[in-house]
Amino acid sequence: MKIGGTPYRTIWVEDDARSVGIIDQTRLPFDFVTLRLRSLEEAADAIRSMRVRGAPLIGITAAYGVWLQMLGDPSDAGLEAACTTLLATRPTGSNLRWALGQMRSALEPTPPAERSDRAYTRASELADQDVATCRAIGEHGLTLIQQALEARGGDGPVNVLTHCNAGWLATVDWGTALAPVYRAHDGGIPVHVWVDETRPRNQGASLTAWELGQHGVPYTVIVDNAGGHLMQHGRVDLCITGTDRTTAHGDVCNKIGTYLKALAARDNGVPFYVALPHSSIDWSLANGFSEIPIEERDADEVGSMRGRGEDGRVAQFAILPEGSPVSNPGFDVTPARLVTALITERGICKASAEGLAGLYRSS
Amino acid sequence: MKIGGTPYRTIWVEDDARSVGIIDQTRLPFDFVTLRLRSLEEAADAIRSMRVRGAPLIGITAAYGVWLQMLGDPSDAGLEAACTTLLATRPTGSNLRWALGQMRSALEPTPPAERSDRAYTRASELADQDVATCRAIGEHGLTLIQQALEARGGDGPVNVLTHCNAGWLATVDWGTALAPVYRAHDGGIPVHVWVDETRPRNQGASLTAWELGQHGVPYTVIVDNAGGHLMQHGRVDLCITGTDRTTAHGDVCNKIGTYLKALAARDNGVPFYVALPHSSIDWSLANGFSEIPIEERDADEVGSMRGRGEDGRVAQFAILPEGSPVSNPGFDVTPARLVTALITERGICKASAEGLAGLYRSS
Repeated sequence: MKIGGTPYRTIWVEDDARSVGIIDQTRLPFDFVTLRLRSLEEAADAIRSMRVRGAPLIGITAAYGVWLQMLGDPSDAGLEAACTTLLATRPTGSNLRWALGQMRSALEPTPPAERSDRAYTRASELADQDVATCRAIGEHGLTLIQQALEARGGDGPVNVLTHCNAGWLATVDWGTALAPVYRAHDGGIPVHVWVDETRPRNQGASLTAWELGQHGVPYTVIVDNAGGHLMQHGRVDLCITGTDRTTAHGDVCNKIGTYLKALAARDNGVPFYVALPHSSIDWSLANGFSEIPIEERDADEVGSMRGRGEDGRVAQFAILPEGSPVSNPGFDVTPARLVTALITERGICKASAEGLAGLYRSS
Repeated sequence: MKIGGTPYRTIWVEDDARSVGIIDQTRLPFDFVTLRLRSLEEAADAIRSMRVRGAPLIGITAAYGVWLQMLGDPSDAGLEAACTTLLATRPTGSNLRWALGQMRSALEPTPPAERSDRAYTRASELADQDVATCRAIGEHGLTLIQQALEARGGDGPVNVLTHCNAGWLATVDWGTALAPVYRAHDGGIPVHVWVDETRPRNQGASLTAWELGQHGVPYTVIVDNAGGHLMQHGRVDLCITGTDRTTAHGDVCNKIGTYLKALAARDNGVPFYVALPHSSIDWSLANGFSEIPIEERDADEVGSMRGRGEDGRVAQFAILPEGSPVSNPGFDVTPARLVTALITERGICKASAEGLAGLYRSS
């Protein structure tokens, strides 16, 4: 997608062929800054500090992180250390584990001397695959937006509510939840997005609003509290979110607060869709509620916020009474029963073991 | 309740007997500052700018606002102007209309020369009544916290989730939703409060956290997105919120996002209670969903936030991409079917026409 008219991916190999470029997403929406990752440690830190975030992009960053390690230490121990370090950066998402598994499968049978080349090739393949996957999710999801337009009697815009950022900033390009929106918009279907702020890190207000704005898609920012009210009043035609991990039975783990929107959608007859690449599916898990570890993140994410002061400077501000205790679970699990359907690169299916098996039986 | 060991109400008549003291709630939690209201306009502005807020306290402030007007212009036109100005400050709450009705009934039959004295007396009576009402709500609600403790086999603390601020800062003293919590805490029942941040104005994080902390009640601040997840995991024993307006059929209008918590409570078998004085009941309305006007508030409440910078200064800072469109509905309506019971100064009743009529038949 484009930033100020220039096409960008969210991650790329730099011209020196020894480092990886990323957009520092913690600086958005105030400043557009790119960074260069030169080592495994810098890649792990970029994930840990959420300079890159979004389950698919985390996976690809980890893949390139393995490559950076192979440039310096292509030994078995080096590979093992890279996978261990990267896996520990974020515990909830499925794509990270999946991408590291892909890299490990490619590199273990490869002689150390050839591992850096192989790692480069494999990581780049995974990045390209991610783009193709997201484009396909967009194709399939587009039909749902077209249906919503028909249900409105052709009278646009179609109002899509999304939570957090599952746009192109969360992937290599296109996005998951927002891929259908971009396809619709580019295809001339009038679409408008309700953007949940998504406290505590405000990925909706900071990233989704920013990327939609850059692309020219109409949107409105709302606080996380407002979506239920909008659905009660018929102002949301469909919800689409992403997911960090979806179980084989269709339970959806996603950014904290997703569950509340799914409940409101059900209560008001609004379809609730989840868009995901196959790498977000954790086939080893059935019950997302009891089996997915939920990351408890730093209290400071709730207790402070970043913004631009009246003097134009971007800074961190404390917003709680001093010493306030805080709890900060990063994700919640929306049970499959509340999910109308899953939108994948292979098509649309029920959020159930049967639904997923129908699309992925052969894989 | 006490602030730094000193007992305070949220509103009081100053020693000059010509002005009213308030706590400037927009300065909390960073600075504790009191203000003096000297005229109708200053009272209206204090409500409009949310220096005082909370449906019951808004009502009492309006009552004193009428008194301030009567000091200068006790004519019929002056009374009429005062009521019109004050009624227009905030459209959603019921208590404001109720309090102005009480003042009008007291003053219309009173000769202009006696109106300022009568207004003073009546406003002070309403303030004292509010304290007694909230204390009674606390008494009745206490039984629900005791039941929750028994349901836990006596193993505390009882975890109460609340949204926005319906504590003593929202009333003259004690609060509505938090009155049972204070009674429990003071009575030695171990109680802990999950405090919803309550975007966009953060009344939970700023006010509820602050007042609970001042009184020594254990609490934890969470983002508005987190409550559903906590309920899924059995970490909430009951929810108690306040209300700005409740219909004769038990539909509850309250701060935006309340509806989402009520849905999560229902989905997880957690009791959802609403605490209210009779002045919050709008007997003229049946269906809250279609009949209560929902205040659309300033976009700037979503697009900026107040906090303390690293230099210690409190300031307003922007948090959205420049020019982001915003929607900011201030309230939502929780249908009676999702409300386990109403806690009033007369006792506990079902959220239904029959339930409310059973308590208030004679009034």
